[in-house]
Amino acid sequence: MSDPQGLSAYAELDLARAARRGYPEAVYCEGKTAQQVAGIAAAVRDRPDVTTLFTRASAEHAEAVLHELPDARHFPEARLLAWPAAPPAPAGGRVLVLAAGTSDVPVAQEALLTARYLGRDAGLIADVGVAGLHRVLGRIDELREADVVVVAAGMDGALPSVVAGLVSVPVVALPTSVGYGAAFGGIAALLSMLNACSPGVAVVNIDNGYGAGHLAAQIAAVRR
Amino acid sequence: MSDPQGLSAYAELDLARAARRGYPEAVYCEGKTAQQVAGIAAAVRDRPDVTTLFTRASAEHAEAVLHELPDARHFPEARLLAWPAAPPAPAGGRVLVLAAGTSDVPVAQEALLTARYLGRDAGLIADVGVAGLHRVLGRIDELREADVVVVAAGMDGALPSVVAGLVSVPVVALPTSVGYGAAFGGIAALLSMLNACSPGVAVVNIDNGYGAGHLAAQIAAVRR
Amino acid sequence: MSDPQGLSAYAELDLARAARRGYPEAVYCEGKTAQQVAGIAAAVRDRPDVTTLFTRASAEHAEAVLHELPDARHFPEARLLAWPAAPPAPAGGRVLVLAAGTSDVPVAQEALLTARYLGRDAGLIADVGVAGLHRVLGRIDELREADVVVVAAGMDGALPSVVAGLVSVPVVALPTSVGYGAAFGGIAALLSMLNACSPGVAVVNIDNGYGAGHLAAQIAAVRR
Amino acid sequence: MSDPQGLSAYAELDLARAARRGYPEAVYCEGKTAQQVAGIAAAVRDRPDVTTLFTRASAEHAEAVLHELPDARHFPEARLLAWPAAPPAPAGGRVLVLAAGTSDVPVAQEALLTARYLGRDAGLIADVGVAGLHRVLGRIDELREADVVVVAAGMDGALPSVVAGLVSVPVVALPTSVGYGAAFGGIAALLSMLNACSPGVAVVNIDNGYGAGHLAAQIAAVRR
Amino acid sequence: MSDPQGLSAYAELDLARAARRGYPEAVYCEGKTAQQVAGIAAAVRDRPDVTTLFTRASAEHAEAVLHELPDARHFPEARLLAWPAAPPAPAGGRVLVLAAGTSDVPVAQEALLTARYLGRDAGLIADVGVAGLHRVLGRIDELREADVVVVAAGMDGALPSVVAGLVSVPVVALPTSVGYGAAFGGIAALLSMLNACSPGVAVVNIDNGYGAGHLAAQIAAVRR
Amino acid sequence: MSDPQGLSAYAELDLARAARRGYPEAVYCEGKTAQQVAGIAAAVRDRPDVTTLFTRASAEHAEAVLHELPDARHFPEARLLAWPAAPPAPAGGRVLVLAAGTSDVPVAQEALLTARYLGRDAGLIADVGVAGLHRVLGRIDELREADVVVVAAGMDGALPSVVAGLVSVPVVALPTSVGYGAAFGGIAALLSMLNACSPGVAVVNIDNGYGAGHLAAQIAAVRR
Amino acid sequence: MSDPQGLSAYAELDLARAARRGYPEAVYCEGKTAQQVAGIAAAVRDRPDVTTLFTRASAEHAEAVLHELPDARHFPEARLLAWPAAPPAPAGGRVLVLAAGTSDVPVAQEALLTARYLGRDAGLIADVGVAGLHRVLGRIDELREADVVVVAAGMDGALPSVVAGLVSVPVVALPTSVGYGAAFGGIAALLSMLNACSPGVAVVNIDNGYGAGHLAAQIAAVRR
Amino acid sequence: MSDPQGLSAYAELDLARAARRGYPEAVYCEGKTAQQVAGIAAAVRDRPDVTTLFTRASAEHAEAVLHELPDARHFPEARLLAWPAAPPAPAGGRVLVLAAGTSDVPVAQEALLTARYLGRDAGLIADVGVAGLHRVLGRIDELREADVVVVAAGMDGALPSVVAGLVSVPVVALPTSVGYGAAFGGIAALLSMLNACSPGVAVVNIDNGYGAGHLAAQIAAVRR
Repeated sequence: MSDPQGLSAYAELDLARAARRGYPEAVYCEGKTAQQVAGIAAAVRDRPDVTTLFTRASAEHAEAVLHELPDARHFPEARLLAWPAAPPAPAGGRVLVLAAGTSDVPVAQEALLTARYLGRDAGLIADVGVAGLHRVLGRIDELREADVVVVAAGMDGALPSVVAGLVSVPVVALPTSVGYGAAFGGIAALLSMLNACSPGVAVVNIDNGYGAGHLAAQIAAVRR
Repeated sequence: MSDPQGLSAYAELDLARAARRGYPEAVYCEGKTAQQVAGIAAAVRDRPDVTTLFTRASAEHAEAVLHELPDARHFPEARLLAWPAAPPAPAGGRVLVLAAGTSDVPVAQEALLTARYLGRDAGLIADVGVAGLHRVLGRIDELREADVVVVAAGMDGALPSVVAGLVSVPVVALPTSVGYGAAFGGIAALLSMLNACSPGVAVVNIDNGYGAGHLAAQIAAVRR
Repeated sequence: MSDPQGLSAYAELDLARAARRGYPEAVYCEGKTAQQVAGIAAAVRDRPDVTTLFTRASAEHAEAVLHELPDARHFPEARLLAWPAAPPAPAGGRVLVLAAGTSDVPVAQEALLTARYLGRDAGLIADVGVAGLHRVLGRIDELREADVVVVAAGMDGALPSVVAGLVSVPVVALPTSVGYGAAFGGIAALLSMLNACSPGVAVVNIDNGYGAGHLAAQIAAVRR
Repeated sequence: MSDPQGLSAYAELDLARAARRGYPEAVYCEGKTAQQVAGIAAAVRDRPDVTTLFTRASAEHAEAVLHELPDARHFPEARLLAWPAAPPAPAGGRVLVLAAGTSDVPVAQEALLTARYLGRDAGLIADVGVAGLHRVLGRIDELREADVVVVAAGMDGALPSVVAGLVSVPVVALPTSVGYGAAFGGIAALLSMLNACSPGVAVVNIDNGYGAGHLAAQIAAVRR
Repeated sequence: MSDPQGLSAYAELDLARAARRGYPEAVYCEGKTAQQVAGIAAAVRDRPDVTTLFTRASAEHAEAVLHELPDARHFPEARLLAWPAAPPAPAGGRVLVLAAGTSDVPVAQEALLTARYLGRDAGLIADVGVAGLHRVLGRIDELREADVVVVAAGMDGALPSVVAGLVSVPVVALPTSVGYGAAFGGIAALLSMLNACSPGVAVVNIDNGYGAGHLAAQIAAVRR
Repeated sequence: MSDPQGLSAYAELDLARAARRGYPEAVYCEGKTAQQVAGIAAAVRDRPDVTTLFTRASAEHAEAVLHELPDARHFPEARLLAWPAAPPAPAGGRVLVLAAGTSDVPVAQEALLTARYLGRDAGLIADVGVAGLHRVLGRIDELREADVVVVAAGMDGALPSVVAGLVSVPVVALPTSVGYGAAFGGIAALLSMLNACSPGVAVVNIDNGYGAGHLAAQIAAVRR
Repeated sequence: MSDPQGLSAYAELDLARAARRGYPEAVYCEGKTAQQVAGIAAAVRDRPDVTTLFTRASAEHAEAVLHELPDARHFPEARLLAWPAAPPAPAGGRVLVLAAGTSDVPVAQEALLTARYLGRDAGLIADVGVAGLHRVLGRIDELREADVVVVAAGMDGALPSVVAGLVSVPVVALPTSVGYGAAFGGIAALLSMLNACSPGVAVVNIDNGYGAGHLAAQIAAVRR
Repeated sequence: MSDPQGLSAYAELDLARAARRGYPEAVYCEGKTAQQVAGIAAAVRDRPDVTTLFTRASAEHAEAVLHELPDARHFPEARLLAWPAAPPAPAGGRVLVLAAGTSDVPVAQEALLTARYLGRDAGLIADVGVAGLHRVLGRIDELREADVVVVAAGMDGALPSVVAGLVSVPVVALPTSVGYGAAFGGIAALLSMLNACSPGVAVVNIDNGYGAGHLAAQIAAVRR
């Protein structure tokens, strides 16, 4: 299935990136054919020293990756595959991911797993939206132990503003497309987060769990 | 200055409205000339039984009203004039107005005064935004004594969602144009409120303090 | 099928909410897997004292709920399930729901049923759009007997403005995504309602029948 | 002040248009300098057989026109000048213009005057918005005598839909930028009109009184 | 299949409309179930004196109508059914429909058929977009014989502006959702038409062939 | 399958266009039925002197074309068919097409093939996005040999601005709908390109590979 | 007034750009203080071999430039200053600029002057909008003599599509912010141009006369 | 001028915030009256242990602050005042601020000063936009010495994506409202940054220099 020799027609891998930037490149599967993803998977097979993440992978993409890299680990809910299967030993600070509602969990997990595979200690707390403030206030100790907090929320996107008012570390605000009508596929949450009345909120693209996890990993990196 | 005989060229007063709907008509000044507003003020002069509010009144509008109705009461910050000057004796339930930040106060006051002049007992608490949750949590007893809460907020518009999770009565969400950049003149706050993750949130137009106060007065009205 | 022990991985139920806020929590099914919904249904099974609504439930969600709660009541058109099946005895005021056109009926029914299951007396009138004013004018007595009127309308969203001019109680404006082209999935109706030239209009999110019914139930609640 | 010899650098008049299309060209002043408008005024001076309208004229534009054409007629509220001063004798059908609110009157007058100067019998009724339906219902005989109805409305833009349900002739819907917040400078009214649930609504651009009057004059033209 | 007795639960027919307004009501099928459409079809069966149009009908809707009204006429490309099958004898003026491109033809046909079934003489010319001006210029005689011209166009929506500059009668501009990318489902064409630099352009909603045909029929109606 | 005699009902071919404008007309398949496309294919069969491109062709469209023109060449990834199969001998300057990422390749190929079939020498370089500047800097010699550069990019759309700063020839910026969330189907890339801080950037519609290739072919044409 | 020594705090001049890219850098004045512009003017004073353009210059900016470079040439309508005053001798092809209406002339002149100062032979034709097609058709010989045509248009932005259908060379479409209401400051024209149904249209930013002229100069450059 | 006793009517200071969150509260002046700002300045006068920043201060606001706190430091270009005048001794990592163009400098300075007054070592490099890549490539050593890079850019907003590809630390992307037309007051830059094809980009609101500086200070904080 793989077609490494034709790879240059559609992709130019950047395996030196881990060395150059400190973080490996991820393969964004959406918009690529299964055959192209397979081609890339085959090309990284002899570089087990570099962790490769396949993000936004459909079932068909996953099958293609697992055909080339049978021991890759697949997280279907987060639409992610990681190879090699084991994340590196954690270094640097603690990343805590919050999901405002149940429907925000898949994107939150993408952030969680990205942070882990980039080498951070990371955890996840689900269903702590602002409609029941006691939920988030009940977790304040965990919040204050983190070095960076990722907050995934759709609908009104109010949670990052509330969390940023409770902690002193940066909050990565991850808007999700959860909601309907005037949620506009995450725009309402995105705008809410960009206008957070608490400072210290770093916004990423809608449903961009990978980006949120990567940014959090950088913020919590071992300081030089 | 007044021109009551020319009134029909631009306005058809509806003085029977107070009888018909239970609430008098307000005069929306923006977009009217000072002379037109004066003409209307002159026309209501012999109906002191009906409270008339002049909303969104510029200094020039206010001068025109006060020329015709010298004993009207002028609230410059809220851009409102009321005639007769004294509000009716309060009846029905309690209206509580919150302003998330200092800049939201003028619109919040327009809501407060509208509720009072429509016959409700009403109060205002300022600067209780979600960036410092202890502020709103410290007012929870006052919140729970109200029969309806109006929440004016700009920027992320997150406060109504938080408040609606704390009380059992309806929350009137009043987005303000406070903010900049991606606040888009109140759109961010408006969308946030329309997508509030707590039920029980009634949204009105951006900066529509009059509408919020009127709706709150209706919600807290004496039940038939 | 149910998985209550794994529940905390994706949801933190708030069964105390009915006691705390006076209204029980609803389960928003969209964005949850059937298995997650089943897990929640199983978790509420031993709390028949609290009415639980499952909203925006697909056929698959409904099947999952009915597997756990066989005596739940399913309203497919409104995409709603209620458990226990019987609504509480009505208390408080009268909720009247209008649907401007036939296509607005499903969302209007979601509002109607929500109000009923939260304990209000509620009724529905369909197909009374402004293109034939005689329809709504012919119902004016019913309108004036309500303590709150919910108006579901798509397309031009003009009906709430007309109704609010005819009654003295609050109107909950419920924009629907009915229409095409420049209706923009309900945005035209939403904007029209936010700019209603009659005061007393409380706007909720597009297609948010649950939210409209909940808000109406709160407005018509037994006054303390 | 005039500069007819330089005219070709910025304008190419189309005086044959009245003959070709049956309606003369209008001079849209906004975006032209007073000197350019003066140049055009001077160029039409020897063509009194063709009615020329100067639209969206500021005070400065008006002064420039009146310097060249001292007997032109100036309607400051409608920002219009007409030359020659007298409209042609009316022919064709009846044009009726409605203004939903007082603030919509200037744009409605631009429509009224345009229809008159293009040779139609035309009248105007002000302040008949849908918040008080009895106002428009009280004018139903006048409405049904018109051959075309122009309806100027801002805010919710609901009036054209209501009127189109009451008459059998075309309704020209003229959205105005009256309103604030989510009125978005007339977008709410525009969308409402484009989605009117009554057929027979012809929409023109926001605040385009000239276009509405022109279209109405064409609809009510003498049939060939 | 039909369910006339349940009709009032979702629709209130307005069969008196033809008498009252001069034009019969149409049944907008989108958003209605096949069963509801069948119910309406059954209800009009004994009123062959009134032409009923079923618009935006899917194959399933069409089947339901034809089951109740087997002699109705079905135009699948225009998604329209008419009953009785034969249009009334033409009266009033001539309606000419232009389709800028091949993809605009279905919507243009909906306009054509609507005008015919409302009693006008009507014709259609396809594929005369502005990219080849000779096409439209070659049809100028036909254009000038019409009493109203409907112009269906997607993409840049430039054709109505060009046509309105060539004829003296009103042009009904019918934006279509043809195009991609920044055509935004017809918004580009809609905006272009609202800003037509030629006066005399009446805009209707995107893809609203029925509305365009109805408006054209009214414009070309027999004058009282 | 073909229906050339019915062709005039939906299309008016412009085979003289190649002579008149120097470039043949293309057949835009989207929105046309397979039967209509077949009809057009049949109609061009006896004009092998004119190259005909069928763009945005689905599998069904392609089958219809190949049935009429069995020796046409089909490029499924670019959704393009060309007939006759061989492009003309290259003349004029060099067209270079860049694709920022793998997902931008199909649209880039549509541009590449269009330029070739309109008679230019053209090449393609893939996966040279700004996240790894060394990729584009490593191709600077190839860039500077081109007479026009087409740059296809989605997401941030930053590449055309960077490339335009490196070359002296025009850059055709081709936004793609690659991305998610706030990419808004290519709007982010489109806006970025319209605001390129380097001059010399010519923007075309989102995903409009045909338009980009055509424009590039014109820019690189043999000068008269 | 000038402050060259402080220059590095706000600007890093790129005088080598003319050599590197073949076209000199322009100074975009908007958003710079008069003092900053003066500092830059002083810094280029000893490089008369490089033509410097100061674009979007207010009266205050112009005064600052002329104080440092008294022999610069100032074109107030186009808000442009050029130094040295004389454009280079023309080389390459012919640039023709069209302005659809009188109000589009200033932006069109910015394009014209930019092309001239970058070394092209260039001309301008004003007021040839599509409302009177005979105007543009009467100029067809001039159009066909150009090597590139720049078309400045606001409102419906229809002219570039018409012109591109008449010529074989590239058309640079320059949307202007001329218009009102749903023109949205040039968005309607911009979208219309991006969706031009004729291929060969290169779009630049709204009111970006400099960019249009620069692109045209590159397209008409002496071919290597 | 100050009115500390009336302070509670419009503001509730949170002086404990520095202790609680580690960063003091800033006073956002826009939307506050000069008198309100003066009241706040007076209230902090006896807390010199807490650094107070007054952001988005007009000349009038600045005068009010300096009247109460004569030894405050005023940075007019950045619209900022700081009291006490001296920033704390730097601790934690290095913050580097880039401004893409001269017009982005004021917002970049607000970021720079905020970071300094919150206790970081910070520097600024101006005019390094992507139109001349050699500018930013020439600063790569400085870039790689920073612990966080803030990038202020308007127009195409492309610089953060380029910078994030060159460094391993987080990039705070600060869109500015610099640009015109389709820049839409910073929306183009904002969207570009949200869609940056390099990971590691943290976006803040348009023109939110304070927020960018605060976030950068948190990212570069002394690790616990």
